[in-house]
This record gives sequence, structure tokens and C-alpha cells, in this order.
Amino acid sequence: MAFDETLDTRAIDGFASQSFMATLGAEVMETGKGRVRVRFRRRDGLTQQHGYLHAGVSTAIADSACGYSALSMAPQGADVLTIEFKSNFLRPASGDLFEARGRVVKPGAQIMVCECEVWEIEPKERMIMTMTATMFIMNPEGG
Amino acid sequence: MAFDETLDTRAIDGFASQSFMATLGAEVMETGKGRVRVRFRRRDGLTQQHGYLHAGVSTAIADSACGYSALSMAPQGADVLTIEFKSNFLRPASGDLFEARGRVVKPGAQIMVCECEVWEIEPKERMIMTMTATMFIMNPEGG
Amino acid sequence: MAFDETLDTRAIDGFASQSFMATLGAEVMETGKGRVRVRFRRRDGLTQQHGYLHAGVSTAIADSACGYSALSMAPQGADVLTIEFKSNFLRPASGDLFEARGRVVKPGAQIMVCECEVWEIEPKERMIMTMTATMFIMNPEGG
Amino acid sequence: MAFDETLDTRAIDGFASQSFMATLGAEVMETGKGRVRVRFRRRDGLTQQHGYLHAGVSTAIADSACGYSALSMAPQGADVLTIEFKSNFLRPASGDLFEARGRVVKPGAQIMVCECEVWEIEPKERMIMTMTATMFIMNPEGG
Repeated sequence: MAFDETLDTRAIDGFASQSFMATLGAEVMETGKGRVRVRFRRRDGLTQQHGYLHAGVSTAIADSACGYSALSMAPQGADVLTIEFKSNFLRPASGDLFEARGRVVKPGAQIMVCECEVWEIEPKERMIMTMTATMFIMNPEGG
Repeated sequence: MAFDETLDTRAIDGFASQSFMATLGAEVMETGKGRVRVRFRRRDGLTQQHGYLHAGVSTAIADSACGYSALSMAPQGADVLTIEFKSNFLRPASGDLFEARGRVVKPGAQIMVCECEVWEIEPKERMIMTMTATMFIMNPEGG
Repeated sequence: MAFDETLDTRAIDGFASQSFMATLGAEVMETGKGRVRVRFRRRDGLTQQHGYLHAGVSTAIADSACGYSALSMAPQGADVLTIEFKSNFLRPASGDLFEARGRVVKPGAQIMVCECEVWEIEPKERMIMTMTATMFIMNPEGG
Repeated sequence: MAFDETLDTRAIDGFASQSFMATLGAEVMETGKGRVRVRFRRRDGLTQQHGYLHAGVSTAIADSACGYSALSMAPQGADVLTIEFKSNFLRPASGDLFEARGRVVKPGAQIMVCECEVWEIEPKERMIMTMTATMFIMNPEGG
């Protein structure tokens, strides 16, 4: 199993606390300082009109990957809110297995800028989406 | 019931053809030339860590509302692909009932620009999200 | 002259303090609580390869219009930083006179979300660009 | 001099054909298949209220860097239009010398997705801005 248990576990706990991530079948594969890697599959209930993965699925998972990347660089007890994100869709998500690779591009005390690439892993490794996201850090002391 | 049956039914058919919209409980309320109105509820399986609606839910529904707004202005037989979208989140989605109001801002033969506002309807009417989206029109003759 | 002198003058002072707005010939026409209206012209030195207004010109002016819309709702002494913006270009800017209409969509103590429409005024009134922008408020007490 | 004369010269010709790039002092340093590198300086006439480079300057140059990155992968005779772009500003542009590094992330016959990082080069090398842009390819045969 790829997950490194010595690292910050807030990303795993965070995904587990979001019922929507369970609905989407998102599984945290790896997390580190400022990065989160998540896998998910195309399956019934997650598709658009052609049977491909709906753009909203990869976007939602990328949003959470960005958010927990940011959280991994925030003080203990902090919370993260999404201010905004933007996704570009590079090709239809016709594959079966996907991976979202989120990372913090610019850490900060109140604002963190994150990026996430979503890759199709099976049957062919190729990038299907990019996201840029801005996260707001709610600090425990009320920042 | 609010739905006007005299109008273009492609939006309703379109939502019905996207299994993810059923997963999210999205219900088309009204459609017209260049606009689609959709309602959805916060419920188990769609939430983030505080029990609010996950940002990905309103984004996914807004994406479909934009896409079918565009389709309603496209030639018969055309298909619509999302090139990109951007969402700003104005406040946490703590309410129970929500409405996405998509519309075409700039129609075009190949590119349409759409906007969608997502409003919390209950318990309090207030806007929670805005989206700008760019749609690519696949024409029946292969444009 | 359209400018209402009874309103908050920080937008006018702000535009005057940005040398780039003078380079672009941006002129504040009107300002109010949460909104700024600015005019500018296509002229030599501001064009792209076809002689149309460069997309960067309307974007820069829309950014300032959003920023000063936000400032007009911020405490006295506050400063505004652009976190991010997104522009969609609806048609080539082939006209001569343009107007940027910025407004605050969601005020806030630290984050404000703004929108700006850019219209071609002459020879034909039509929208050429939309922007959504996120502004960070630096408060005098260091917020 | 860094510029490789054996490569596609359309980017250099393109920048030279945009009067706004001369106004901004943008200088093409290097171009290749799907990438363009451009330098520019902070100077009088390009600043915001604190004397830093206006966000619109780096955005305009990044837009052109993205556009000519796309053009370098398009058929001879094609033209490129910006559909949309989104910029995140990572820190104030307080430096003196900057570099925009544009590249095509996803080539395509009609749509190309590009990214551009803008770096401060002097006095300190650090990224100040990211852009994601969508370009529309106008083909010579009218595509």
C-alpha cells in the first residue's frame, strides 16, 4: 500500500470526514507536506451523457485534494475553505481509473494557492484536467 | 409544477442522461432558450467535513446547467463539451435547498460562454456560488 | 460630466495613483458603494496583431475597476490586493471606446468577490469581456 | 543571446506585431515548439499604487506568451484568439526584472490549453503569478 503513515494524517482524516468523497469513491493514496494523491474510478452513478466520468466528479475530488494539501501546511487546528477554483478539461474522461495530484504552489498564513492535475491511469496514462484553486486558512485563534 | 413543457426538452433529457445528476438529486425546474434552472438538496452523501454541501456538488450541477443552457441554443443533434469553468464560493453552503440558474452569456457556433449563479433557497435566499463556463459545441456535421 | 463628487473618492484617487492606468488612458466615470465605471479608448500602443485592443488592456482596467469597487466597501485606510481573476473574451475588441463596469458581488472583511463587464461603447454597444476577481483586504490594523 | 534562430519565428514576429507588447517592453528570449519565454522590466508607467508592477502587465504578457506558444503548434497561416485566461497572483511584483514562461499543456486542432508562470528574476528568483489560458485556433481554411 502506497500510503506513508509517518506523514500528516489530516488529509486522510479529512477525506474520511467528507461524505461526498465516499459517494465518489475517492481513496487517499499518499500525502505529504503540501501534497495529496487520490484515486477514484468511473462507475455507475458518476457519469455524463456518454458514459464518461462527469467533469464534476474529478473537479470535486481535485478540490478536496487541493484543500487537504493546503491543510497539511497549516497550523494544527486550522480549517480550510475553498475561495475559488478553475478547471480546464483536456479530454473526455473515458477511462476507468483516475488519480488527482494536488499540491500547494504558494503557502501562506491566510491564503494558499494550490494546483491539481487529474490523470487517467487506466487504460492509458494521460492528463485529463488541471485545476488552480485558492484556499482560505481559518486559524484556530480566529485568523 | 414549474416546468414549461412547451420549451426545448433537451435540457431535461440531458439531465436524465447523466447518472451523476441523479446521484446528486438534481431536478430541472425550468428551461428556456439559453437558460436552465435546477434544484437540489443537501443530504447525506453530499457533504463536506462540517456537514455543509460539498463545493463539488454545486459545481457539478452548475456545470450541467451551463452545458444544457448552451445546448438549448445549439443546432438539433449537437453535443456540448465543457472546455473549462471557474467557480467562486461566496459563503458556506449550510442551507437545505439550492437552485442553480444557468444562462448563456454569449452564444456562438463553436464556443458559448455561460454563467451560473447558485442560490440557497431554504432557509434563506442568498447567493452562494458563481460560475463562468466555456462550452464547445460539437455540431452534427462534425464542426 | 458623469462623475458624482459626493461619493467615495478613493476609486478616483486610486486610479490616479496607478501609473499603468494613465498609460492605458483609463478614466473613472462614476463610482459608488461597491461599484466603479471606467472608460478607455483603443489607440496606438494598446493593440494586438490585428489592430484590435489587446486583451491585456481591458483585463488590467477591469482588475483596477474590481479592486477599487472593493476598496469602496472597505474600512478607511484599508488596502486591496488582487488574489486572482478570470476573464472570458466574448468577441474581438475591434471598437474605439470601451467601458469597464466593476462591482462587488460579495463584500467581506478579508475577501471580496467582484465582477466586471467590459463593454464596447462605440461604434456599437456590446459586451466584449467578463471578469470575476477575488480581492484581499489589508486592513489598517493589519488584518 | 538566448534566442534560438533555428526555431519557429512566428512568436517573435507575433510579439513584434502587437504594439501593446512594445508599450510593456516585452522581449522574446526564446521560443520552441509549444513554448515561449519573454522578459520585461518594471518601469515608470507600468506600476500600481505602491510602485510595484501592475498585475495587468504580467497578465497581458503572459496572455501573449500563451498565445504564441499555441501558435507555434498550429498550422502555418493559422491565427490564435484568447477565449479566456485565469491568473493567480502569488506575491506583490516588487522586483525589477520578470520572465514569463508560457507553454502548451494540451495541443489541439481547435482548442489549445496553455499555462504560463511569471517569475521575478531580479533581485530574487521567485514565482509571482500563474496563468491558465484557453486558445482558439483559427485555421487558414477557416476552421
